[in-house]
Amino acid sequence: MTADEGGLPDIKRNVPTAIHAQISEHIRLRIAGGEWPPHYRLKSEPELAQEFGVSRGTVRRALATLIEEGLLRQVRGRGTFVTSTVIEPAIAQKLSTLSEDFASQGVVTSTRVRESSLITPPRPVAALLDVAPGTQVLRLVRVRSTEEGPVALLFNFVRADLAPGIEKVDFTASSLFGALEGAYGLKIASARRTFSAEAASREVAEALSLAEGAPVQYLQQVTYLADDRPVEYSDVWIHSGRLRVTSLLQRR
Amino acid sequence: MTADEGGLPDIKRNVPTAIHAQISEHIRLRIAGGEWPPHYRLKSEPELAQEFGVSRGTVRRALATLIEEGLLRQVRGRGTFVTSTVIEPAIAQKLSTLSEDFASQGVVTSTRVRESSLITPPRPVAALLDVAPGTQVLRLVRVRSTEEGPVALLFNFVRADLAPGIEKVDFTASSLFGALEGAYGLKIASARRTFSAEAASREVAEALSLAEGAPVQYLQQVTYLADDRPVEYSDVWIHSGRLRVTSLLQRR
Repeated sequence: MTADEGGLPDIKRNVPTAIHAQISEHIRLRIAGGEWPPHYRLKSEPELAQEFGVSRGTVRRALATLIEEGLLRQVRGRGTFVTSTVIEPAIAQKLSTLSEDFASQGVVTSTRVRESSLITPPRPVAALLDVAPGTQVLRLVRVRSTEEGPVALLFNFVRADLAPGIEKVDFTASSLFGALEGAYGLKIASARRTFSAEAASREVAEALSLAEGAPVQYLQQVTYLADDRPVEYSDVWIHSGRLRVTSLLQRR
Repeated sequence: MTADEGGLPDIKRNVPTAIHAQISEHIRLRIAGGEWPPHYRLKSEPELAQEFGVSRGTVRRALATLIEEGLLRQVRGRGTFVTSTVIEPAIAQKLSTLSEDFASQGVVTSTRVRESSLITPPRPVAALLDVAPGTQVLRLVRVRSTEEGPVALLFNFVRADLAPGIEKVDFTASSLFGALEGAYGLKIASARRTFSAEAASREVAEALSLAEGAPVQYLQQVTYLADDRPVEYSDVWIHSGRLRVTSLLQRR
């Protein structure tokens, strides 16, 4: 993109606004207008300095402002990128949980436990958990929220025979995998996760502050231990406007 | 699951229906009723033989019928599983394309090319492809269908400067990655893929035989070459009732 094609700004030197602030504002408008979308990689600092006709230090100061505002982020060895406006957990690529992914990305979330009790699971869930029909399992219902609001409604069914007393764990403070691996010493080894788009039921819509019937990202999961026994089944409903499942993939 | 708990059938020996056919029918009803859901792992053949009170050969014959019908599948060293009723590509876990995944799973698909022409891309697409605004790129619009109907509507924007003449390729016969890697010798190295649930626009709904506003799985992708240049951007709309994005993940 050259100065002509990209519509670079006229830097005004005889106005009270500092030059670095003019550059920040120019970039801010590009991002706000969608012209530079999330994950767009900016040119290098020397290239930007040449195009704007300013020093590299001025460019760096302009970028620093936008990084502080959260509009840009720098990745070592890769460059400066426009930040995504949604959380992008890699839960389809790695067997991490939402809470682990949030923690590694520095996203602050809160958890509300709506239910944590022993119940008799529906027959298909009993089958996938490989327990006899009628066996009690933990049913854990949680809502995870960021400061923007609720992002996920989680229903977990956990084999209580493998984790006796798990219904007494405080899942406001502990994560589920954390409790299974920590307190119970279970070796979580693998999972099958499937993703699909579904219409929000009334319950899902209310929990995620969506309209009933609105599209929601649905994640279904069965988690297995190292000895191949299933330990947990879950239905997770995700607010796509606030969280996008993301994978960074290599061809070979 | 014991005979009492699982509600195993009374095998009738004085009726014209062969015993193996009675067992097949019993399992068929379990699957149809959702009691044995997709991915449920059946007990081993010796265990089933003991529970039904029949020989292992009879069990094997009953299972063979259901495998032939596509209701069960056997995975070497893992056991016998209830088949999923939807296609389950691993496109969030591996940088394979839908067509490559369909081929490896033996799913027969057809492709209809709705458009293949050079156009000036929207500004955000130009930014993600790192081309100057106004540069022409290939816009490729395809519908992929299985025998059940359309499963995905794909919009690809491909850098024609890296693949001159690509608008002349017949994408009914060739895959996009196949052409880029084969005919043009480009080294596709990595991609970022994001997944979210969206409401079907009129165009998407018509292409996928869905109602307007119905939930669809949306995949957005940017693909990069080994030298880190972006080569392709795409918007893909997936019929969740026919295709579920699936990941088989390891904890460590």
